[in-house]
Amino acid sequence: MLIISPEAHNALAKAAYQYRGYTTAESQDAARFCEMTARHGIRTHNVIKALHLDDHFGSRAGGCVPGARMDKLPSRFAASEVWNANKKLGPSVGFAAIERCITLADQFGIGQVSVDNAFHYLWGGGYVMEAAKRGYIAYTNCTAALAEVVPFGGKFPTLGTNPHSWGFPTTDAVGYPIVVDWATSTMAMGRVQQFKREGKTLPPNVAVNANGESTTDPHDVKALLPFGQHKGYGLSLINELYGAYTGGSLPTLRSIENIPEGEKRTPTFYFQVMHPEALSSGQFAKGRTMAANVQAVIRDVLGHGNDNCLLPGQIEAMGAEKTAKAGGLLFPEPEVLELNTLAKECGHPEFDLATLPTFDD
Amino acid sequence: MLIISPEAHNALAKAAYQYRGYTTAESQDAARFCEMTARHGIRTHNVIKALHLDDHFGSRAGGCVPGARMDKLPSRFAASEVWNANKKLGPSVGFAAIERCITLADQFGIGQVSVDNAFHYLWGGGYVMEAAKRGYIAYTNCTAALAEVVPFGGKFPTLGTNPHSWGFPTTDAVGYPIVVDWATSTMAMGRVQQFKREGKTLPPNVAVNANGESTTDPHDVKALLPFGQHKGYGLSLINELYGAYTGGSLPTLRSIENIPEGEKRTPTFYFQVMHPEALSSGQFAKGRTMAANVQAVIRDVLGHGNDNCLLPGQIEAMGAEKTAKAGGLLFPEPEVLELNTLAKECGHPEFDLATLPTFDD
Repeated sequence: MLIISPEAHNALAKAAYQYRGYTTAESQDAARFCEMTARHGIRTHNVIKALHLDDHFGSRAGGCVPGARMDKLPSRFAASEVWNANKKLGPSVGFAAIERCITLADQFGIGQVSVDNAFHYLWGGGYVMEAAKRGYIAYTNCTAALAEVVPFGGKFPTLGTNPHSWGFPTTDAVGYPIVVDWATSTMAMGRVQQFKREGKTLPPNVAVNANGESTTDPHDVKALLPFGQHKGYGLSLINELYGAYTGGSLPTLRSIENIPEGEKRTPTFYFQVMHPEALSSGQFAKGRTMAANVQAVIRDVLGHGNDNCLLPGQIEAMGAEKTAKAGGLLFPEPEVLELNTLAKECGHPEFDLATLPTFDD
Repeated sequence: MLIISPEAHNALAKAAYQYRGYTTAESQDAARFCEMTARHGIRTHNVIKALHLDDHFGSRAGGCVPGARMDKLPSRFAASEVWNANKKLGPSVGFAAIERCITLADQFGIGQVSVDNAFHYLWGGGYVMEAAKRGYIAYTNCTAALAEVVPFGGKFPTLGTNPHSWGFPTTDAVGYPIVVDWATSTMAMGRVQQFKREGKTLPPNVAVNANGESTTDPHDVKALLPFGQHKGYGLSLINELYGAYTGGSLPTLRSIENIPEGEKRTPTFYFQVMHPEALSSGQFAKGRTMAANVQAVIRDVLGHGNDNCLLPGQIEAMGAEKTAKAGGLLFPEPEVLELNTLAKECGHPEFDLATLPTFDD
């Protein structure tokens, strides 16, 4: 792996976003977010993927509007806000929303922000991890850009991969925040493509063909199945319902170009933050502090011969450790070449692969 | 099926609870809750199962204290409350907590109540369904009484079956509230016992043997597996974490009689209610109302050839329809005999099976 300094990474990310018309503040938010994904080894949402998304659904496709002004809508509810993002860049909206929820949670113990007319916030885990690192319990969900998932018992994809992300302030207890973060499909479509490229057969109950029948041949895949049958289906439906109450669009319209007059095709976001002290009875066994009680519970779960289990968020924490050890963000050579393509496009200095330091896994 | 009037059912339930020392108010709460489960066809949590639970873990085992006074603990957070249930009867606590959350949601858009030193609230779906029928979005989780579930990648059961329940006010849209409600194990232990009695083989990835190895022989089962691998594991862990912040006990201690000095073995509850208008941008496509937008989203999900799909909560709604059609609560004959055993125990009039009206499914 090649090592790129966060400064060089962020300068390139910022330049690439500014080149696409995003404001300085938006471009800095994008750079900050992409640094977070790179730091934690989230390669599915690094700067290359983020700009690829911008090409296909964002500023180059009308789904995201550089420089858009976010409107805070009037609300009669003191611990709740609703924002019209007006298709503003996802990370700018996500960072601001989680920040606002933290302020609300400080006052009310819990706060929520729902966002209409949004554009892809990339990796929901990032926002709840940010809140969790600062000592809060956080949750977010969103409706995905495409309807790729077939409801349990159905044939046609009418649901997004609709992720859920929860973050918990467990740094005192285990050294990093626990982050439960996944899509409600069994597998991402990108991974199905990977199986196709590698000539592999899919596990059962991952995907369906054009007739809505379960298939293990990645070449036949037309849509994905939710994980855990009716349970994952319910979890995916939850995001559509949050979206529907917020002002969200019909799920299948998010996948198509020409929607009926007056319909919407924008996704929605939902954010929630809780102050852990707002949950606490203060009556922890054996006089423990809250942090010690959380640690004791986690140790119990991972005890009794379960020491090989991972905690959710542990892989991301291991990614961050590796980044720290390397002293910079890690990219494989093909990705650095892609970064150079992005640099060339916006007239930013390219990386010299011959002089970049390397890190052996 | 035999038909029992809600009045007769509730009179017996109330008498049985009062006989065990519960107050009039607690016994009425229990009767009201058991009527809800019977009405919606939730046979796993009807009055027979509720009293069985009271025998094994409740008033006859020290886990629940009839007449206990619930303490509202001081909190500096306006939209949040923490209660010490002092082992009060679960449904009394659950009904009161969801009621309080509704009041908080009316004011703040969102409200939360966490409960320490709790006793089993039976069916989490009931509380969120109640809130959803009254127009609110609601969520609850709790830590289960026993540690029966092995964390993903582990060998020993250190997690509860830890259920999650979400309710959505969709009566205007589909005729009943959508209720997403399930345990985080693939299968309940009670159903494993049923497979054993029926001499059937379990599906794969449901349970493990004494060595922590996956087994399909119900006679070999020592513990359950979470659904959806790491995803269900994460969902189960979430309840333990909410519990840990609240004041909850170590999960494995909840299963054993003699716990170390100073430790706790009580479960915890968490309740949250949101006012749907607190989520709304008001900017629904085609000038729809919020209810019409929710309906349009659900129709889209169940359209396109997916009309055979069920919505979460639909089976419960069908149960309630059947109850309405029958004009009373439905119990199979063996359960009415069990009701008579309960009646005899507390000196309450028994049902005359010869004269009870019947209903053909």
